[in-house]
Amino acid sequence: MKTDAKKFLLQEKEIPEAWYNILPDMPVKPQPLLDPATKRELKADDLYPLFAEELAKQEVNTVDRWIEIPEEVRDMYKIWRPTPLVRATGLEKALDTPAHIYFKNESVSPVGSHKLNSAIPQAYYCKKQGVTNITTETGAGQWGAALSLAARHFGLELAVYMVKVSYNQKPYRRSIMQTYGAEVIASPSMSTKAGRKIITDNPNCQGSLGTAISEAVELAMSTPNCKYTLGSVLNHVALHQTVIGLEAEKQMEMAGEYPDVVIGCFGGGSNFSGISFPFLRHNLSGGRSTRFVAAEPESCPKLTKGEFRYDFGDEAGYTPLIPMLTLGHDFMPANIHAGGLRYHGAGSIVSRLKKDGFIDAVDIPQLETFAAATLFARTEGIIPAPESSHAIAAAIREANSAKEAGKHTVILFNLSGHGLIDMASYDRYFAGDLIDCKYNP
Amino acid sequence: MKTDAKKFLLQEKEIPEAWYNILPDMPVKPQPLLDPATKRELKADDLYPLFAEELAKQEVNTVDRWIEIPEEVRDMYKIWRPTPLVRATGLEKALDTPAHIYFKNESVSPVGSHKLNSAIPQAYYCKKQGVTNITTETGAGQWGAALSLAARHFGLELAVYMVKVSYNQKPYRRSIMQTYGAEVIASPSMSTKAGRKIITDNPNCQGSLGTAISEAVELAMSTPNCKYTLGSVLNHVALHQTVIGLEAEKQMEMAGEYPDVVIGCFGGGSNFSGISFPFLRHNLSGGRSTRFVAAEPESCPKLTKGEFRYDFGDEAGYTPLIPMLTLGHDFMPANIHAGGLRYHGAGSIVSRLKKDGFIDAVDIPQLETFAAATLFARTEGIIPAPESSHAIAAAIREANSAKEAGKHTVILFNLSGHGLIDMASYDRYFAGDLIDCKYNP
Repeated sequence: MKTDAKKFLLQEKEIPEAWYNILPDMPVKPQPLLDPATKRELKADDLYPLFAEELAKQEVNTVDRWIEIPEEVRDMYKIWRPTPLVRATGLEKALDTPAHIYFKNESVSPVGSHKLNSAIPQAYYCKKQGVTNITTETGAGQWGAALSLAARHFGLELAVYMVKVSYNQKPYRRSIMQTYGAEVIASPSMSTKAGRKIITDNPNCQGSLGTAISEAVELAMSTPNCKYTLGSVLNHVALHQTVIGLEAEKQMEMAGEYPDVVIGCFGGGSNFSGISFPFLRHNLSGGRSTRFVAAEPESCPKLTKGEFRYDFGDEAGYTPLIPMLTLGHDFMPANIHAGGLRYHGAGSIVSRLKKDGFIDAVDIPQLETFAAATLFARTEGIIPAPESSHAIAAAIREANSAKEAGKHTVILFNLSGHGLIDMASYDRYFAGDLIDCKYNP
Repeated sequence: MKTDAKKFLLQEKEIPEAWYNILPDMPVKPQPLLDPATKRELKADDLYPLFAEELAKQEVNTVDRWIEIPEEVRDMYKIWRPTPLVRATGLEKALDTPAHIYFKNESVSPVGSHKLNSAIPQAYYCKKQGVTNITTETGAGQWGAALSLAARHFGLELAVYMVKVSYNQKPYRRSIMQTYGAEVIASPSMSTKAGRKIITDNPNCQGSLGTAISEAVELAMSTPNCKYTLGSVLNHVALHQTVIGLEAEKQMEMAGEYPDVVIGCFGGGSNFSGISFPFLRHNLSGGRSTRFVAAEPESCPKLTKGEFRYDFGDEAGYTPLIPMLTLGHDFMPANIHAGGLRYHGAGSIVSRLKKDGFIDAVDIPQLETFAAATLFARTEGIIPAPESSHAIAAAIREANSAKEAGKHTVILFNLSGHGLIDMASYDRYFAGDLIDCKYNP
């Protein structure tokens, strides 16, 4: 059944009732997390000091394909979910492509991105077990803003370490977190051992997600009744984000099509996993042969140029060892404007899937992403976040290939967030001040 | 039928097919627009030099209750419409009120406000009659951003005069307009006679909507094939904005309730008229007795303290004479952060309705609006625009009255826009730098 609708909307009763856990369906499971000191495999209870217990259990759950979404979490999802699936008819026309381009619009959340999908359950599970304080890191500020709102809702105190380059480039994101009531610290900071060491070694260090994670972990470990939370990379984050793909699956059905290619931008894997895994399960079961494309920045190409090995999730080496595609935990990415993608490694599930050939990746130069973003803004109306612009650029490449091949292709990408708080980077782009940043190992 | 749903969503095929024109239903019609030189009544064709012909006809149409929305306009509405109606359960709980509070969420548009509802038809009708260039003014930047997107979509060149205080306070809004491809000039500017005169008289003048309108009108009148467009005040703008109330009417039905009071913030009347008129028609027909409350800033109280008389729409006196509640066209409002409400007069329809007792108004101090905004952000997740915060503050007053009276009251307000691009004003509020600005005639 074909339709010429622009948008496909679900009612709030159609918000998924369970998250999809891809681990049981993977032919080869990721290797386990290891204790860095003993190299011993970590079980859920080894993670309890750092994470809420329920989240630690989800992290290592390779058995349950569906994990029920608590009522309190679904209630809060109702603030903005289900999100629209939109046919990018304006972009299609501008590209003069036979491809059909769809995007899942996660930018309609109150904080402007998909990050709230995991912030809410993380805050909820912490609250449920009596935790009073939580810490986290944030790159561009999307995750920090989302967690600030979730923490406020469940009555938790929150301290956010924000990567210094973003803290300075994106003061409005800091203001948003403060409006919700969170404390925001520029990282590296003098408030932790990890931060002090980096500042001492390099007083001008602009920070990285890896460093901010070290600081947030250190504060959580040294504060009573405090847990650490992470907005990407980990299995339980990918799990929560599957609401994106599960909704999109129903909505593509409403559109009467099925995607040939599914695209997400890639920092640590949260939104890419969220849009991809529910469709990927039909590949794993043998029913479909969709391509999955992770779009990462040229300057931080962990999927296309990283090494598959155990590495730390943070700069200082506080986290468990994670089996990942990595550029090295001490890699300091260029100061590109897509702050949320400036991370050295990929989560263990995506790393395994990439290694086993289930997903592809492309790395995209910064200027190409801003050109794509501008075209998208002018044809679809929405000014995208610089992170999401990587997915748009990859979608445009696919649409152009379809045109060259004269082939009808159905493209689905995730618009992980809007860029209304990133206008300073657009100003720099239009002024000609931005450059492409090569990978510089 | 009662429901505990949080949101009420319509499908895009339920976008209204016609705008509601309240003029035929008004027991006393507004007096006509007058030529300032001759005091002669202006007919549609007298307005053709300034406005697109179709818009001029709509402006003076007192006959047709329903005016069909062109297919091209509805197609573009589909980018984000219908917008959600949301039950503010979090806010209700925080206020411990027996009232039910609903808001129509117009902040989900790509530019973050309701202004796109009229920007699209205005650009469309200009394009349709072969116009190539348009001009406008903008206060906070919401209207300018919306018109920039609409102009780009229909291939029109646009020059926007942006009130200087907002140009400096809200650089991101300027960036948004430029991303869509518009030219943005801080007003008062040296580019027009009207601007030069004001700068000469007062070099530090921070501008006003009235002055920016003068500049935009002057440029339109002196440029070939160029029309002027306005984001508020005029009858045809109120007409286009009725999509808000028409959708809300269906959605309140889904919620199984009918509003006892309907609230909108008030600058020139665009969003207030949009949410109110479709409900007000049931008062006018005798079927309902809903109260309508326009929420204006204490520092710019045209509805509560203005005089009912003919006045100019702009500072320099270029526009027709409009029968309005006005503080005087040369009134220079205080530099409050709700830039979109810094206008001296109310549109002729609302002015007449206020005079005839069909609507109420309240004027609200700046600090109360930011306190209301912060409570709303922390309970409903969405950070509101400073303009919309006036409606929230008024809704909170109503909910508190309902609590005192122990009365179940159904409150509906329009959330005209989000505040993600207004974070600098929140920073100032939290820093204690904001003050209440009294009316200073």
